[in-house]
Amino acid sequence: MEDLVIGIDIGGTKIAAGLLDRQGNLVARALSHSHAGCPPEQVIEAVVQTVSSLLSSARVSRERIVGVGVGCAGHINCDCGIVLTNSNLPDWNYHPLRETLGKRLGLPVLVDNDANCAAWGEFRYGAGRGSRHMCYITFSTGCGMGIIIDGKLYRGATGTAGEIGHTVVNPDGPLCSCGKRGCLMSYACGIALDQMARDCLECGEDTLLRTLCGDNPEKVQAEKIAEAALQGDPIANRLLATAGRYFGIGLSTVVQVLNPDTIVIGGGLAHIGPLLLEPCVQALNENIHPVLVNTVRIVFSELWNDAGVIGAGALIWEMP
Amino acid sequence: MEDLVIGIDIGGTKIAAGLLDRQGNLVARALSHSHAGCPPEQVIEAVVQTVSSLLSSARVSRERIVGVGVGCAGHINCDCGIVLTNSNLPDWNYHPLRETLGKRLGLPVLVDNDANCAAWGEFRYGAGRGSRHMCYITFSTGCGMGIIIDGKLYRGATGTAGEIGHTVVNPDGPLCSCGKRGCLMSYACGIALDQMARDCLECGEDTLLRTLCGDNPEKVQAEKIAEAALQGDPIANRLLATAGRYFGIGLSTVVQVLNPDTIVIGGGLAHIGPLLLEPCVQALNENIHPVLVNTVRIVFSELWNDAGVIGAGALIWEMP
Repeated sequence: MEDLVIGIDIGGTKIAAGLLDRQGNLVARALSHSHAGCPPEQVIEAVVQTVSSLLSSARVSRERIVGVGVGCAGHINCDCGIVLTNSNLPDWNYHPLRETLGKRLGLPVLVDNDANCAAWGEFRYGAGRGSRHMCYITFSTGCGMGIIIDGKLYRGATGTAGEIGHTVVNPDGPLCSCGKRGCLMSYACGIALDQMARDCLECGEDTLLRTLCGDNPEKVQAEKIAEAALQGDPIANRLLATAGRYFGIGLSTVVQVLNPDTIVIGGGLAHIGPLLLEPCVQALNENIHPVLVNTVRIVFSELWNDAGVIGAGALIWEMP
Repeated sequence: MEDLVIGIDIGGTKIAAGLLDRQGNLVARALSHSHAGCPPEQVIEAVVQTVSSLLSSARVSRERIVGVGVGCAGHINCDCGIVLTNSNLPDWNYHPLRETLGKRLGLPVLVDNDANCAAWGEFRYGAGRGSRHMCYITFSTGCGMGIIIDGKLYRGATGTAGEIGHTVVNPDGPLCSCGKRGCLMSYACGIALDQMARDCLECGEDTLLRTLCGDNPEKVQAEKIAEAALQGDPIANRLLATAGRYFGIGLSTVVQVLNPDTIVIGGGLAHIGPLLLEPCVQALNENIHPVLVNTVRIVFSELWNDAGVIGAGALIWEMP
């Protein structure tokens, strides 16, 4: 009896796996450490081991598994099952992950972008339930989006739709990790926040961050910035306001171009709360036509860290 | 026998009407003058007269008409048939055009955004034939977009999807006609080009535009800028390069968010040619990930000025 699916989330810091039933319940989980920078063979080996330990710990036989859905960052062509690009896995360009992993596991495999998987998870079992046109946006280390249109995951012509993080919000803005200038992600994500904070420290600005992070600017992280801001540090507050403002501008692009009924916000930075989100909502409303204000329900993720695993697994049920 | 539809395009300078058969052929046309700024009653009266003269000139009886599709600028809720906002018709806010016009004509009426109509026209009978995920973008007085997803017109949750012209490309940029700063339309459309040229004249810059437009800065128009640029005027060339660059940045947003297989470019400015379009394509390719370059077919409109009328009429065939 094939009644379960497996969802995998290959992240920059860990590989998370989950066993999922028809109702979207995670009946078992497994985790293994990061393989950032490793060649495909090593990561695939780790995924195979994680699936084995998931099945054995849950005492579930392989015969019950319909398939394995895999989410990972970057440009993924789901139709072909190919990882086109992935900044955590730079040697993976054009690797046929669906084929190689499918052979190793002896199970049908589906590969999709991690934000697409999380969007599908939230749409089917989380904060997007009942919506029709939904966008899921991560406000995290990076900034990604998954799009649901008419109740279906919208991937675009080559599987790369939803790249909101690299839309240009200021062509003369700061350098983004992608090499372009002024991408949304050069302002509104964890990487950008860290960079802005390091720039402030290097410029000798008087901020609590110096105390919280010591002399090592590599230790600057969004959590420290939030901590400093909560303690009233004006520099840290300004950084959060900048990131929040640009995230709101990104939301205004989404609202104007896609006019969704629901936007689900996920990702670790969302937990920072009002210091980041108030400037975000203000910028959203300032940057859309008044007739569009309040046309979209903006809600937080319900599945949070599990959204990717649940969505990746649940996409298996949608396979033709 | 109901075998024909009527398409109407209510523009800022004219009302265009066309009689359309099942194959998308325009079998007759009618035109009446502009009613910009007029209250609904007057514009509706003009539409009714235009339809009458269309039918009588074509010697077609009203019984053959399945319905009347109407495209007009602004935010339109097609489901409700309501004009939410329209900058040419400022008193029209929330006017139930479908209902009032339907009663006057005694025919089923559909109302949609003009860019949506043109997109549908190009998709069914023009440059977008055979595509699956298509965007139609006007590079004209303004800048609008219609989206086809999976072969269907995508309108969004409240009918306002496709508002690419008011996405923010520089939050500290010039004032847009909508009151915001740095919208795509504050750089990349006829209104923006005219304004940038007037600013140059006012600043006393040495340009051929002064000769071509005389002392009246109101006479500055995109055509004059193109003429000056073709004669080698560096200021005019700079203006076209700026507008083209930002239009290309707008296209990069479309490619990254929607990943269409085809983008159809329409609108009068597209006729200016390479001086505008080369900086556009360069900016597009510079502002997307290399993996996305050449994933989209970019083509010019085939129906040009008729796209709106043909698409508005053809949408009638799609009515349930």
